[in-house]
Amino acid sequence: MKKIGFQGEKGAYSELAAFNCFGPGIATVPFREFAGVFHAVMTRKVDVGIIPIENSLAGSIHQNYDLMLEHEVKIIGEFKQRVNHHLLAPHGVKLGQIRRVYSHPQALAQCQNFFRTHKNIEPVSYFDTAGSARHIATLGDPAAAAIASIQAAKEYNLKAIQSSIEDSEENSTRFLLLVRQNSRLKPPHAGEKGLIKTSIVFALRDIPGALFKGLSVFALRDIDLVKIESRPYPGSPWRYLFYLDFLGDSRDDVSVKAINNLREITVFLKVLGSYAAVKK
Amino acid sequence: MKKIGFQGEKGAYSELAAFNCFGPGIATVPFREFAGVFHAVMTRKVDVGIIPIENSLAGSIHQNYDLMLEHEVKIIGEFKQRVNHHLLAPHGVKLGQIRRVYSHPQALAQCQNFFRTHKNIEPVSYFDTAGSARHIATLGDPAAAAIASIQAAKEYNLKAIQSSIEDSEENSTRFLLLVRQNSRLKPPHAGEKGLIKTSIVFALRDIPGALFKGLSVFALRDIDLVKIESRPYPGSPWRYLFYLDFLGDSRDDVSVKAINNLREITVFLKVLGSYAAVKK
Repeated sequence: MKKIGFQGEKGAYSELAAFNCFGPGIATVPFREFAGVFHAVMTRKVDVGIIPIENSLAGSIHQNYDLMLEHEVKIIGEFKQRVNHHLLAPHGVKLGQIRRVYSHPQALAQCQNFFRTHKNIEPVSYFDTAGSARHIATLGDPAAAAIASIQAAKEYNLKAIQSSIEDSEENSTRFLLLVRQNSRLKPPHAGEKGLIKTSIVFALRDIPGALFKGLSVFALRDIDLVKIESRPYPGSPWRYLFYLDFLGDSRDDVSVKAINNLREITVFLKVLGSYAAVKK
Repeated sequence: MKKIGFQGEKGAYSELAAFNCFGPGIATVPFREFAGVFHAVMTRKVDVGIIPIENSLAGSIHQNYDLMLEHEVKIIGEFKQRVNHHLLAPHGVKLGQIRRVYSHPQALAQCQNFFRTHKNIEPVSYFDTAGSARHIATLGDPAAAAIASIQAAKEYNLKAIQSSIEDSEENSTRFLLLVRQNSRLKPPHAGEKGLIKTSIVFALRDIPGALFKGLSVFALRDIDLVKIESRPYPGSPWRYLFYLDFLGDSRDDVSVKAINNLREITVFLKVLGSYAAVKK
């Protein structure tokens, strides 16, 4: 049985993503910190780490970009998980009894319509969505509910009194599947590949127009860029590492040429992986 | 007397930056949230907001990029503040008495050498560096110290038992000075201008090689790019806004041409300001 490491408490959105991505036949292993997931991948305590890299509303999780650089991991797939917030309470509790709703401040902020139409219910900040579900399950107070994932309802034997109470229909998180760099493990549905994406990270030489020249190696070859992210270059204040996603497999002839071309103007370059999106 | 708004408690690194940037003849106004600083600038509760935009070790403060988009502010200057962490304790306390040191987890993590060489002293997480200084000043426990700015020592009548205990000499924060968009207020030392930088934010049309084409309008005119940052484009999942800093004044002929050229391939573009670095 494959072991999948995730950050957060049991019932976290990351655990829900793990089950939706790999199916029910896996063992999920929670870690308090993102760094713990990376460490578990490196020390073979888990087969795969599933980490959020970007939310469609809040943006990139930059810490995980830094951790990908620090660990010899590779990306073997990505998975998009819709963020559906559910109002969870112990079985038997009715909406009219609820006076306080616990959740992470970001989740509370994403359910403003709910609180606007239920003015007698007070939002209460909690450090974690899944943790707030565990908290109200132990409290056993019919006035206390939580906002968390449907996975948290299963985990803590709670009932979803209302489902999909988030304001925006565009709230999704993109997860990456990480393995050790020399692992041969394949992502789910590895046969039916769609578009392949490659992620690289590099630091440019200090030359005029460096970034423009860096991007030109892709433009000249009609390679589509999907995303660019900049991070501090450790040890070089106010200089940057660039994380770039482009369409194509790093083993394809045209990608090899583009990457070799890019190496001419970089002081550092690392391929983080070529991978497809895992479909549900 | 100019009123300068900052985020954090009195004694925060942002307040230290305000005094170092503007000199002692200002009134500093603390706000709990970054959004509060922006709101105060817009409603004229303060003349200038000073907000951190980037730390040389930790990277950009992305929330402030988003807030610059949401408010009709302009940047009139930037200021780099070296982050020197000091070990603060009540007057009369000696290093040998200290058993616990309170501070923000990031500050504690930046002083690992200190804790390695003082194994009998335990680091304790606190929500805020300046807040930890206030906390130990009220405690009055000779075993409790804090790691915070020299400004916090002044504010809470504490003594710097050790100075500059941070591990890295490259720990600096870059602050932006923000005013209302129609304000005529000038930054300190406005006469003696060095290099002028312009910050813009834009969203590209959905065309092949869009970012490459966007950067080409600068490269073709030998305009140097300093920084690029991407953020989610609100309402368009997995599309991006780009924040770009380039060398030059937005009113210069060559910058005007570059920006007009860029508008040909953007769906949105806003100039956030042209400004120089304020020297101490």
